[in-house]
Amino acid sequence: MAKVNEHYLKLKAGYLFPEIGRRVKAYLASHPGARLIRMGIGDVTQPLAPAVIEAMHKAVGEMGRRETFRGYDDGGIGYEFLRRAIAEGDYKARGVDIDPDEIIVSDGAKSDTANIQELFGPGNVVAVADPVYPVYVDTTVMAGRTGPADEAGHYDGIVYMPATEANGFVPPPPECHADLIYLCFPNNPTGAVATKGQLARWVEYAKANEAVIFFDAAYEAFISDPDIPHSIYEIEGAKDVAIEFRSFSKTAGFTGVRCAFTVVPRQLRVRTADGRAIELRQLWVRRQTTKFNGVSYITQVGAAAVYSPEGQRQIRQTIGIYMHNAAKICTRLTELGYRVYGGRNAPYIWLKTPDGMGSWQFFDMLLERIQVIGTPGVGFGPAGEGFFRLTAFARPEDVDEALERFARL
Amino acid sequence: MAKVNEHYLKLKAGYLFPEIGRRVKAYLASHPGARLIRMGIGDVTQPLAPAVIEAMHKAVGEMGRRETFRGYDDGGIGYEFLRRAIAEGDYKARGVDIDPDEIIVSDGAKSDTANIQELFGPGNVVAVADPVYPVYVDTTVMAGRTGPADEAGHYDGIVYMPATEANGFVPPPPECHADLIYLCFPNNPTGAVATKGQLARWVEYAKANEAVIFFDAAYEAFISDPDIPHSIYEIEGAKDVAIEFRSFSKTAGFTGVRCAFTVVPRQLRVRTADGRAIELRQLWVRRQTTKFNGVSYITQVGAAAVYSPEGQRQIRQTIGIYMHNAAKICTRLTELGYRVYGGRNAPYIWLKTPDGMGSWQFFDMLLERIQVIGTPGVGFGPAGEGFFRLTAFARPEDVDEALERFARL
Repeated sequence: MAKVNEHYLKLKAGYLFPEIGRRVKAYLASHPGARLIRMGIGDVTQPLAPAVIEAMHKAVGEMGRRETFRGYDDGGIGYEFLRRAIAEGDYKARGVDIDPDEIIVSDGAKSDTANIQELFGPGNVVAVADPVYPVYVDTTVMAGRTGPADEAGHYDGIVYMPATEANGFVPPPPECHADLIYLCFPNNPTGAVATKGQLARWVEYAKANEAVIFFDAAYEAFISDPDIPHSIYEIEGAKDVAIEFRSFSKTAGFTGVRCAFTVVPRQLRVRTADGRAIELRQLWVRRQTTKFNGVSYITQVGAAAVYSPEGQRQIRQTIGIYMHNAAKICTRLTELGYRVYGGRNAPYIWLKTPDGMGSWQFFDMLLERIQVIGTPGVGFGPAGEGFFRLTAFARPEDVDEALERFARL
Repeated sequence: MAKVNEHYLKLKAGYLFPEIGRRVKAYLASHPGARLIRMGIGDVTQPLAPAVIEAMHKAVGEMGRRETFRGYDDGGIGYEFLRRAIAEGDYKARGVDIDPDEIIVSDGAKSDTANIQELFGPGNVVAVADPVYPVYVDTTVMAGRTGPADEAGHYDGIVYMPATEANGFVPPPPECHADLIYLCFPNNPTGAVATKGQLARWVEYAKANEAVIFFDAAYEAFISDPDIPHSIYEIEGAKDVAIEFRSFSKTAGFTGVRCAFTVVPRQLRVRTADGRAIELRQLWVRRQTTKFNGVSYITQVGAAAVYSPEGQRQIRQTIGIYMHNAAKICTRLTELGYRVYGGRNAPYIWLKTPDGMGSWQFFDMLLERIQVIGTPGVGFGPAGEGFFRLTAFARPEDVDEALERFARL
């Protein structure tokens, strides 16, 4: 009989959000009509920017006329109009020189941060923060780079780097060797950001270890502090060692539209078994053009509109709504006696659970008593135990009501 | 240094279509202004159906208003409205009972036929036809299931099943054992279709070998012969052994929109190392919800509109245009003395090159002398040498002109 990929069988429990979904569903079944406030899954609530909507209507119209209809995305790595807009708007504007051909457009940072592992052989050691976005760990397990998980949920073979109150949730490079390092700043789930100095230490580590950094910058648009880097390429030498992942999901409300991109600098090289150094970008393009067929033209036109002056103004306004939510949550919960992190340069608030409560215990308590849904910190890794993630993506009036409910606890 | 996935290095040359692109580009550089007629890459040319356009405009509008905005596709496997429409329109209508939860919506059959391999362990033997859609082979190589390629282009470890004039381009099951079998009917590139009896032999083989069939039915909408099955599930017992891949790309002109789906019946099981049989569907859902984040809401609304009465009428009309092209190509080329296959239940015409010319030699000759672009048969595998694929997706007036040019040869 066809034999299964045994590595899938090592995966512990379900992916975090389905588990939350199950508990919420069970609660609703026994409490019909309960008014839940969802601050758990990192999904946005504000509509797409008018400039994006207008552009997408235009693109839909083009697809309905023979003269302007578009089939396959020629080349499969994204239309040049979008890759140019990204190179200008996201990089050149911050003094970083990225060639449009180093930008590969895709349907999501989740797909890209997962699929990138395929380019690497089985002998590579993966390092991740703990807590961490579960996709990095689960895909490392699926790729067969780990043994089984221990009771705490740590997989054998992964280098975990604890992100704690003591290190401000920005772990330093580990003492040991790692080949592939996932970094995410602004961080999901802790909301922490890394300074240029902190990222420079990582670039240095990667050079010394001939490692590759997978830099997930999906939340860079939420940075308000002018000294915090938006791209790892703001660090000298990073182009030799780092891939950067970005997404329109949170930046422009594209969670239901699906568009992202990955930057693989031409100078980034990896080693073959016989010792040659080869260009990683070519391998990624080969992977994407073989296993993927590009992003909807309509979506790409919408994404490009994000870079127009109106698009920029409009998305800044929406991000302002979310960051105003974040500020309110931080202020009010602090007043109520909670210890709160993040929320200043990131849409995530990392709350220390009171009285040493476990993360899931706190989740169940909030669901039961005030019908507010957040995400248990331990769902992001053992070091997240005793923490709880709230997102700033809810509607402002829901945030207000959630905070009133917190006050009643 | 981070070590590369060595299996990628075994891949022979570039993917077929980029190579065609390079030759065409070189020709255009030395012949500026040449009027090329493209019948090579299988891309469509007719606009989206008005029902689809109308639905997508409506969905874009919804995404622009707070009350109707949609974020992540809840569950990540496709909206129920679409999965229900598929279950009714594509299956129930043909007497096949598929539960909407057995349908997992994605961005493309290319992605799905490639990614499905991840669910299987390294010890599985893959069988493919020769010639074959290159994605099946390239992804088998990337997954490490092969040794290097020989001079003809056959990879060690793959079971190749020659599709020849002698077997009507429908190879019977092999004598040897295989675990994972890619079948594609109506076939790309040969345009051949399989009868119920032929598919039944495959189902029987899969049962006897405890193998899984990957049935790519991306071209089923082009079947005109009422006796030819559209789904492998029209064969008794197929749900125990077959996954079916379908796409809106050719059916409804979605090559630039991106929507497809994969059917994994609940009863389909695979073996673990310790001998248990486990449900494959759950593993696919786990893969998709971990490494993928669903399809654009706007796209899914457009895809659902394909199943409305107007949508059905409109896509049948477009398919009629393409199949009229196919009939003209077959008739005229036969009159001109070519031996021609396919084109009756499929949008592909499989042409035997005249005078024993090689496939690429014929490609270069057509490009040079009549500026018609097709696809060299050998690009689909060694057994495709001496054949040439033409697609019926060009505009009717271009097909007429291409045939006039053929007559001048």
